[in-house]
Amino acid sequence: MSFNTFGKQFRFTTWGESHGPALGCIVDGCPPNIKLKEQDIQVELDKRKPGQSKFTTQRKEDDKVQILSGVFEGKTTGTPISLIIYNQDMRSKDYGNIKDKFRPGHADFTYFKKYGIRDYRGGGRSSARETAARVAAGAIAKKVLENKLGKKFKVVGAVTQLGILGCDTAKWNDQVIKKNPFFCPDKSILKLWKKYLLDVRKSGSSCGAVIEVRARGIPIGLGAPIYSKLDMDIASAMMSINAVKGVNIGSGMNSAQLSGEQNSDEISQKGKKLKFNSNNAGGILGGISSGQEIVVSFAVKPTSSILTTRKTIDKFGKNTTISVKGRHDPCVGIRAVPVGEAMMNCVLLDHYLMNKAQCS
Amino acid sequence: MSFNTFGKQFRFTTWGESHGPALGCIVDGCPPNIKLKEQDIQVELDKRKPGQSKFTTQRKEDDKVQILSGVFEGKTTGTPISLIIYNQDMRSKDYGNIKDKFRPGHADFTYFKKYGIRDYRGGGRSSARETAARVAAGAIAKKVLENKLGKKFKVVGAVTQLGILGCDTAKWNDQVIKKNPFFCPDKSILKLWKKYLLDVRKSGSSCGAVIEVRARGIPIGLGAPIYSKLDMDIASAMMSINAVKGVNIGSGMNSAQLSGEQNSDEISQKGKKLKFNSNNAGGILGGISSGQEIVVSFAVKPTSSILTTRKTIDKFGKNTTISVKGRHDPCVGIRAVPVGEAMMNCVLLDHYLMNKAQCS
Amino acid sequence: MSFNTFGKQFRFTTWGESHGPALGCIVDGCPPNIKLKEQDIQVELDKRKPGQSKFTTQRKEDDKVQILSGVFEGKTTGTPISLIIYNQDMRSKDYGNIKDKFRPGHADFTYFKKYGIRDYRGGGRSSARETAARVAAGAIAKKVLENKLGKKFKVVGAVTQLGILGCDTAKWNDQVIKKNPFFCPDKSILKLWKKYLLDVRKSGSSCGAVIEVRARGIPIGLGAPIYSKLDMDIASAMMSINAVKGVNIGSGMNSAQLSGEQNSDEISQKGKKLKFNSNNAGGILGGISSGQEIVVSFAVKPTSSILTTRKTIDKFGKNTTISVKGRHDPCVGIRAVPVGEAMMNCVLLDHYLMNKAQCS
Amino acid sequence: MSFNTFGKQFRFTTWGESHGPALGCIVDGCPPNIKLKEQDIQVELDKRKPGQSKFTTQRKEDDKVQILSGVFEGKTTGTPISLIIYNQDMRSKDYGNIKDKFRPGHADFTYFKKYGIRDYRGGGRSSARETAARVAAGAIAKKVLENKLGKKFKVVGAVTQLGILGCDTAKWNDQVIKKNPFFCPDKSILKLWKKYLLDVRKSGSSCGAVIEVRARGIPIGLGAPIYSKLDMDIASAMMSINAVKGVNIGSGMNSAQLSGEQNSDEISQKGKKLKFNSNNAGGILGGISSGQEIVVSFAVKPTSSILTTRKTIDKFGKNTTISVKGRHDPCVGIRAVPVGEAMMNCVLLDHYLMNKAQCS
Repeated sequence: MSFNTFGKQFRFTTWGESHGPALGCIVDGCPPNIKLKEQDIQVELDKRKPGQSKFTTQRKEDDKVQILSGVFEGKTTGTPISLIIYNQDMRSKDYGNIKDKFRPGHADFTYFKKYGIRDYRGGGRSSARETAARVAAGAIAKKVLENKLGKKFKVVGAVTQLGILGCDTAKWNDQVIKKNPFFCPDKSILKLWKKYLLDVRKSGSSCGAVIEVRARGIPIGLGAPIYSKLDMDIASAMMSINAVKGVNIGSGMNSAQLSGEQNSDEISQKGKKLKFNSNNAGGILGGISSGQEIVVSFAVKPTSSILTTRKTIDKFGKNTTISVKGRHDPCVGIRAVPVGEAMMNCVLLDHYLMNKAQCS
Repeated sequence: MSFNTFGKQFRFTTWGESHGPALGCIVDGCPPNIKLKEQDIQVELDKRKPGQSKFTTQRKEDDKVQILSGVFEGKTTGTPISLIIYNQDMRSKDYGNIKDKFRPGHADFTYFKKYGIRDYRGGGRSSARETAARVAAGAIAKKVLENKLGKKFKVVGAVTQLGILGCDTAKWNDQVIKKNPFFCPDKSILKLWKKYLLDVRKSGSSCGAVIEVRARGIPIGLGAPIYSKLDMDIASAMMSINAVKGVNIGSGMNSAQLSGEQNSDEISQKGKKLKFNSNNAGGILGGISSGQEIVVSFAVKPTSSILTTRKTIDKFGKNTTISVKGRHDPCVGIRAVPVGEAMMNCVLLDHYLMNKAQCS
Repeated sequence: MSFNTFGKQFRFTTWGESHGPALGCIVDGCPPNIKLKEQDIQVELDKRKPGQSKFTTQRKEDDKVQILSGVFEGKTTGTPISLIIYNQDMRSKDYGNIKDKFRPGHADFTYFKKYGIRDYRGGGRSSARETAARVAAGAIAKKVLENKLGKKFKVVGAVTQLGILGCDTAKWNDQVIKKNPFFCPDKSILKLWKKYLLDVRKSGSSCGAVIEVRARGIPIGLGAPIYSKLDMDIASAMMSINAVKGVNIGSGMNSAQLSGEQNSDEISQKGKKLKFNSNNAGGILGGISSGQEIVVSFAVKPTSSILTTRKTIDKFGKNTTISVKGRHDPCVGIRAVPVGEAMMNCVLLDHYLMNKAQCS
Repeated sequence: MSFNTFGKQFRFTTWGESHGPALGCIVDGCPPNIKLKEQDIQVELDKRKPGQSKFTTQRKEDDKVQILSGVFEGKTTGTPISLIIYNQDMRSKDYGNIKDKFRPGHADFTYFKKYGIRDYRGGGRSSARETAARVAAGAIAKKVLENKLGKKFKVVGAVTQLGILGCDTAKWNDQVIKKNPFFCPDKSILKLWKKYLLDVRKSGSSCGAVIEVRARGIPIGLGAPIYSKLDMDIASAMMSINAVKGVNIGSGMNSAQLSGEQNSDEISQKGKKLKFNSNNAGGILGGISSGQEIVVSFAVKPTSSILTTRKTIDKFGKNTTISVKGRHDPCVGIRAVPVGEAMMNCVLLDHYLMNKAQCS
């Protein structure tokens, strides 16, 4: 069972509710003798932190992480690493007026029906606040992978579509991503996105997004067919993120429209260097990494908490309406970027370690 | 670890290579006292069987399944059910001339690099022939679900896009699906698809497909957040099928383009009956089934084994070319329909059983 | 993988080192709607707490537990329960003089060789301090089982052998156990044990113990053959406790000396009541609970940290000697009683929940 | 879940009933490029085969194993290895007269109560016949370990106590074990054991046994604290064998009676060679292998199927008596020796592979 645990060899187990006293995770299976300090994790959490621009929720959270175990004299010891983040801005009152209603598009209805009880404050366990713990775990995975794979290794995510507006991924630029509040990789579209999202926010509505995550410097051979295929585990990882409804590997859904000639990536050798002539596969063949860049994209649905009044029912089965005030992101997809990166790092490390057991 | 095992509570472990003496699976965690006979499994296998129309491979396989354990006097006993299918048409010679080459788009390259050895006959373990074992396991899951959920329960899959040609899913008709070789749900498009696929085959090329699987009569409450979400496990299941490159739940990738108002499904109550006014969620909220129809679609890339000559390298690192003769499906997506149904049945039963443990 | 996680359906993952800032666990898979407060856990922790009598270590630990998640308005919600205990009495200086030496009988040598690094303060992760987290998890399991199984349900442990001194288990009395610092079930032997253990302590030596745990009111049918047999999982649970070297179910090792007639428990029916005429099986047949009392016993080796000077080597491979001062239990077996009870509660709940999934 | 699956990285899943058409297992996680042929497995099966001497059941089973997958051109490929053994001597009639009765000491009662159905023929799934599949899996583990660890590696088991008769384990001789039908390691006791067991058989009774398994040439560092400790997994493995009621690691239950000085094994260094001065730990410290010989012993209860008439009830709740004729081993413990060896090989390989993932 893996209710709140992700991964096989490198595993993390998260806990905590949106408005509880704290949240965190245990990272298990981390190799020993890797340098690790709180700041390594904090930098990743800061990317995801709310309240950083007018395009994200104004909820204030410092998201200060503490390492409680598993690190001794600055190095991992191979024992479980416990991370904790105390919550600060828990305005539970915001939720009092909707505590008996099911917000459309949220997990309120299904949690209540499944468990017969729910923590209604900010969605409780179903809140995207849980992803802070994943980002923390991902930061550790990143440190280990950098140690094992060296400088060529890099995982980088971006928003490639904001609502109805795409961007030109051929213009992808890692440096651009860092310097705009959308994690957009294409400088030329920024102005348009900004105007569009402000309009969405002003109208009390919300929009979805597509996030793309790329991983470079990945060795050939990661992935364990048949039921721990690398693409299967990546899809699983991304689909586990709140509000994600679709996942593509390489050409993804588009591959259905290609011919065999267009789709299968030819291989050629130039001296000692092997080269694929295209990357429709997204770096994965038969569930195993091919050494090409791994490319995954996923769709995040628009924020369901909107100002617009919507029809719903309450827990007594009565028809009612709802308008969610609170402090919500007009596009939750933006803050999903560091989460997607974190999940990618975790899956890759998981498979990197498993591959040692399988093939050495 | 779950290299060749799928599922948590209801689990199956598959084995066998494309050109080995046999293939099969062990189904573990099947509840006791469920009526089961070989014919129940055979009917599902027959849907997937090659050589049934001119649109699929002409490889002849009877795919006769035998139950070797776990059933006593016509009923399951709660012990592992071992299923075996002996292979019949093993023309390994077909592969002799390509045994040292890596077929573009196939797992040849990655298996060889990962394991340092590979069974080159028909792709060995990476062949889609493995999916016969899944279909067999899925047939058992279906029998159990029918027993537990009654008549309203139904899982049905269809091809909703054949290469560049879509169909009108609003015209979805279960009866139509059964009566055409494409598992197409829309009668009006059949002629066009037929002509298109014959052209593809004649040209020695291939095309991809989109498959949609729908599940009805599913109780509220299946799914175990956070890391065994129902949509996560369905995505994982579908992505594990050979050649699948993208998965959508409900509105899927398209949800990125919707506004919050368009996307979140309003809820209303009429007497004792609860109703969602739309189903963008695809029947799953917060990773838990909502009682709505569960809708998943996935893209299958075009068959990589094509007649057209392609550039590749051999295992000695030399540039060469390849043209795959053999007997291949012009569109492997078609035979993925019963596989998608099988995986859906397995995931649903897995979660149905897990839910008993979580909430009773 | 289950490095730091115990259980399948009801799972706990522990973290923390002997002299770190805190320790704790995440309990996952706990059913919803069970009343739970910190005090329920605290009472169990207090049984294990050091410094309670002159027969246990004088290390001072309040072991105050906090619930950080998974409980809302006094009830479990079905989401992960995070428990934390902050450490108070961390005299790391005590260990400075032995930081480079391997204490005989301890994990110092193997941890260092395996991981290439170790937290030498009080054994770090290998310290029995980790068992506090298990006792906390076990307290939750107990609450759930009491809720599900009612008043007949009870798990109770005792020390049945202290070093070379046994006791008469036919005189087992639950009330006696509570009232003596040895958890001894036989009042008649108490004086002797007291004198014996004071002598052991005075001499700077230590002694082992046998602990017996009994579970009553257990329904028939818990246990999942073949590789999750109830006795297998109980043995596994007990063997995971620090310093345990042997485990018996029912007649245990002694069963080797019995004849078939002596050993197999006859069954008889009196009206509606089924009765076994003996209980050599220890309440488990074929890995499944039979409804009889479940009886397990296990041996705890003598404390390895003793005043007596012992030969060992240091991490540079040099011969040296060691005499461990610190504040150690003369018999660690005594404080293993609440740990054995906790593990029993956890295994039973795990199987109780799994059985729902298997057979309902 | 692991109902019928054993192991984490190196895993086997068994299937089959005592009187079904066949039994077998899937071995998953076996490293690639290991030479393997059916004969490697057959030699181990032949050690366990019934009908080899007058001291074991006269049921005739050739136990011929076939490899159905996972091996290509004489080498493992890293894909699942499916093994099958067809049953030959299925005299189900022998069981007709007891099909409604619960044999005391057997799993008949608990299987029926748990599942509401049971295959009464020879115990069905609860029969020790299942252990043939384990021996087959263990043979593969042995081949891999021999390949990885070289000549120093050896696992050898023996019967060290037959009913009420012990033997002198100080006289342990591997060569003696091979040459007597009891797997007894002490030549001097053979005559006595022979006379004793013939008496037991003649009287229609049965006796228990203690089996000891030793593993040499094991590297330091195997074992994953806290909940995959090597001793925990070994205890678990042995306790999963039919009729096992107790397990000791090293001094085992006896350690309770030792003082700290007697029990903890001193360490000393002579040049480059590290030496433990004793081995009460049984080769495992803190759940991790220390490089010493690993020593485990376990008790097998006396065969429950005896000629002597015993009281029991039938499935309708009526009192009755039973006398089991069939063809049973007077001491099932004897044939448990190759099973114990197999389980040890499997656990060791499992941890050997896991250690690669944890620490490389």
